[in-house]
Amino acid sequence: MSMKWTSALLLIQLSYYLSSGSCGKVLVWPTEFSHWMNIKTILDELVQRGHEVTVLAYSTSILPDPNNPSPLKFEICPTSLTETEFEDSVTQLVKRWSDIRKDTFWPHFLHVQEMMWTYGDMIRKFCKDVVSNKKLMKKLQESRFDVVLADAISPCGELLAELLKIPFVYSLRFSPGYALEKHGGGFLFPPSYVPVSMSELRDQMTFLERVQNMIYMVYFDLWFQVWDIKNWDQFYSKVLGRPTTLFEIMAKAEIWLIRNYWDFQFPHPLLPNVEFVGGLHCKPAKPLPKEMEEFVQSSGDNGVVVFSLGSMVSNMSEERANVIASALAKIPQKILPLRLYRFIPMNNFAKIPSILGHPKTRAFITHGGANGIYEAIYHGVPMVGVPLFADQPDNIAHMKAKGAAVRLDFDTMSSTDLLNALKTVINDPLYKENAMKLSRIHHDQPVKPLDRAVFWIEFVMRHKGAKHLRVAAHDLTWFQYHSLDVIGFLLACVATVIFIITKCLFCVWKFVRTGKKGKRD
Amino acid sequence: MSMKWTSALLLIQLSYYLSSGSCGKVLVWPTEFSHWMNIKTILDELVQRGHEVTVLAYSTSILPDPNNPSPLKFEICPTSLTETEFEDSVTQLVKRWSDIRKDTFWPHFLHVQEMMWTYGDMIRKFCKDVVSNKKLMKKLQESRFDVVLADAISPCGELLAELLKIPFVYSLRFSPGYALEKHGGGFLFPPSYVPVSMSELRDQMTFLERVQNMIYMVYFDLWFQVWDIKNWDQFYSKVLGRPTTLFEIMAKAEIWLIRNYWDFQFPHPLLPNVEFVGGLHCKPAKPLPKEMEEFVQSSGDNGVVVFSLGSMVSNMSEERANVIASALAKIPQKILPLRLYRFIPMNNFAKIPSILGHPKTRAFITHGGANGIYEAIYHGVPMVGVPLFADQPDNIAHMKAKGAAVRLDFDTMSSTDLLNALKTVINDPLYKENAMKLSRIHHDQPVKPLDRAVFWIEFVMRHKGAKHLRVAAHDLTWFQYHSLDVIGFLLACVATVIFIITKCLFCVWKFVRTGKKGKRD
Repeated sequence: MSMKWTSALLLIQLSYYLSSGSCGKVLVWPTEFSHWMNIKTILDELVQRGHEVTVLAYSTSILPDPNNPSPLKFEICPTSLTETEFEDSVTQLVKRWSDIRKDTFWPHFLHVQEMMWTYGDMIRKFCKDVVSNKKLMKKLQESRFDVVLADAISPCGELLAELLKIPFVYSLRFSPGYALEKHGGGFLFPPSYVPVSMSELRDQMTFLERVQNMIYMVYFDLWFQVWDIKNWDQFYSKVLGRPTTLFEIMAKAEIWLIRNYWDFQFPHPLLPNVEFVGGLHCKPAKPLPKEMEEFVQSSGDNGVVVFSLGSMVSNMSEERANVIASALAKIPQKILPLRLYRFIPMNNFAKIPSILGHPKTRAFITHGGANGIYEAIYHGVPMVGVPLFADQPDNIAHMKAKGAAVRLDFDTMSSTDLLNALKTVINDPLYKENAMKLSRIHHDQPVKPLDRAVFWIEFVMRHKGAKHLRVAAHDLTWFQYHSLDVIGFLLACVATVIFIITKCLFCVWKFVRTGKKGKRD
Repeated sequence: MSMKWTSALLLIQLSYYLSSGSCGKVLVWPTEFSHWMNIKTILDELVQRGHEVTVLAYSTSILPDPNNPSPLKFEICPTSLTETEFEDSVTQLVKRWSDIRKDTFWPHFLHVQEMMWTYGDMIRKFCKDVVSNKKLMKKLQESRFDVVLADAISPCGELLAELLKIPFVYSLRFSPGYALEKHGGGFLFPPSYVPVSMSELRDQMTFLERVQNMIYMVYFDLWFQVWDIKNWDQFYSKVLGRPTTLFEIMAKAEIWLIRNYWDFQFPHPLLPNVEFVGGLHCKPAKPLPKEMEEFVQSSGDNGVVVFSLGSMVSNMSEERANVIASALAKIPQKILPLRLYRFIPMNNFAKIPSILGHPKTRAFITHGGANGIYEAIYHGVPMVGVPLFADQPDNIAHMKAKGAAVRLDFDTMSSTDLLNALKTVINDPLYKENAMKLSRIHHDQPVKPLDRAVFWIEFVMRHKGAKHLRVAAHDLTWFQYHSLDVIGFLLACVATVIFIITKCLFCVWKFVRTGKKGKRD
């Protein structure tokens, strides 16, 4: 009885929220690949709730494809780069990042920075094309959008919001060294218990690991720059007609929707305007196509292993392919490889969910992309991780720390290594148990990640912002933020007092001495 | 259509949460007065959802009164103190705190510390009575509770949880200087933009205010001790039979339910296991009793002003009472004073909500208790704050900073001051607007505060804890936490390298010089 009553009350409350926000207009500055797939889940939900969603794509966009049938509106901005050129350069970047995985620390991150800058230069070019397109900007102005939704990893969304004088919300997976989160969002990452992103460390660190983490932090804070900041700052200052910086504009974000949660991420401090909405793209498993279901059923009690190494497969050497094939041939489970048409991991993205949610799935061999790992968490499937680049090694390190995955090195693993890893995650019940624990944590949240993401976007539209969640840290310079001026002032005060006291004592001593001397004379 | 569909889905999800947690057993270590009233709202809701709630009261408890008809179970522990003695000593404490309000910084906080210690000594005595009562402890053991719910401001709940080997959840309004939050909970409060509690500062501080805040922080970190820590540590070590500290046991809390939210508090960093559930006791206004409704209606367009100064009224001098009365006589609004039977502010607590929610209420004259302020926020009523002690000055400073209140000084205000303050909050539309803004923020949350509080208590019962939300900071010593060992080590490394290089250069120089000398010879 009381349950029903409470449910009814909650329904009323939720209906109020759902109905009270009259439908709004959302402008989207998208990113490609897995980023787009993830943000698209939010956009589809926004459309479902009656909002008008306009995606600002450049004419060479690959995934935000206006030709695909979709309830989303597209606003296309022409650029000089052709689609093939754009795709080729992105392919090159991804391939290069995957190639440099054997580099040691310093050259590795130098290369990562170089690639981020190349990618950033391309985005800046597109951004310039948009903001200098007077006709387009006039149209956007006239459309009177309520909010801009942007991926923080691709700058420009915040500039558009600033030009259109509307609030904006970020979606973000992570940035190398948490640079954007720190400098743009004001997040805090104490190095003693928060491993720097891409460090592959866990939250419980030994002394030497903490030393390593500190070196990472110093490196990322002082040397590494996600973007070619100087150029971005100049560009933003020029467009806005006043001296400003990229981070200053980023810091105006109303809400940060981080595509992570505490089933995946190690707990760390957060801010009131940060929501962890990892796994918002996950959905309950749908029935498999008949042919596939028959294949899965034919595996009997042994079940199946889902195999998807994303982008790496197409570039794999024959030797590596043989190592994998020979291990897979030796396990009693059937293998469900996901076909790959192009390098883009997202081509198989849509297929993973249903297969991972099948009760006969015993393990998931994965390259460690965040979206795929969230599918495994959602369905409670233990993993064998063979990470290659970007956040993949870090993702697998997290799953390993939480006892839900075994990690292998793609370049050095032998057939036996892979076989043993598979046997371990399938036969040691602890791995399944830990994966199920993560799954239970993921499913047991007061509000589902997707609903939370949409709630806060709608909140920003309803209230024209969410300034009450914004820490005052954003109004301070870096030395004010670290209280260096205050500490300096207080030390100066103490020094002055000590100086005056010493001076006085010295004077008294001198006076006394002179007095004594005088007496003696 | 899509709205309905979404609502239905959300209902299913919520019903799942509500029904999936089979009913659990909650043990409560309560605190008195407003603290009890607040936690009782949670307990009533837990009972409504089918949980068994047992309150561990000492025989002298004032508000957690087992003689009141209630669906709560009471477990009474006898103590040597009589009820009158207990009440008298608490009355004395509250009176004393209110008396020292005119003290300057240093003596004021010395007195506050002295009072906290006196109160703490009393709590420790009760705690000793409980844990040394073998019969009671055996009964509690056998009852197999799922979770302990305790107010962090009254230690002992965490000790009971440790002895019973069950998880525990804290409810907390605040602690002086955020000592418990910092040392027990691992919260972060950067002094550059988070004003220390009881400092009456706002989040946007001038340079001198930041200096002041830093001095507050240093004072609270190095001098002020909320509790007589040495005695508590000894007591806990003795009871648990191993060297431990109060803060070490407090740090095991699964969830901290902070009785605050960003409509009231200035945004600051938080942790994944912290929920801000301020205002969970607020409910929509019920119709007033007939007599009172007639009185309110007779006010016409001018409306009424609600007047409740909590504990201070009974101790008020005639002169102060006259100042207030003469101001109230001059406004066109009718006055609704809340009668006070005893010093306990909570006697009128239950009456405030309905009156503040009345459409004819124009303003609220308040002493600034957190519960009352939340009622005003909930209903969007501007305030005139006349704070006296504890968090009251800070609370009013927050409301003033958010533009919803005018602050007066109880001891120095004149009749004209009060009159002008009332006129300002009633006639300047900005105050009502700001109060309504806070109200809108308060009402527009994905899940209501009370539901969130209950959700996380149920979560802890369902999963036997919430360790995935606990930062690894708790496993570090203070110097590890601040990375002092790592910084020391790295500086030593740098020094060694510099030393070796200098030494080598010196050797080379010496060698070269000797060579030259040899040649010359």
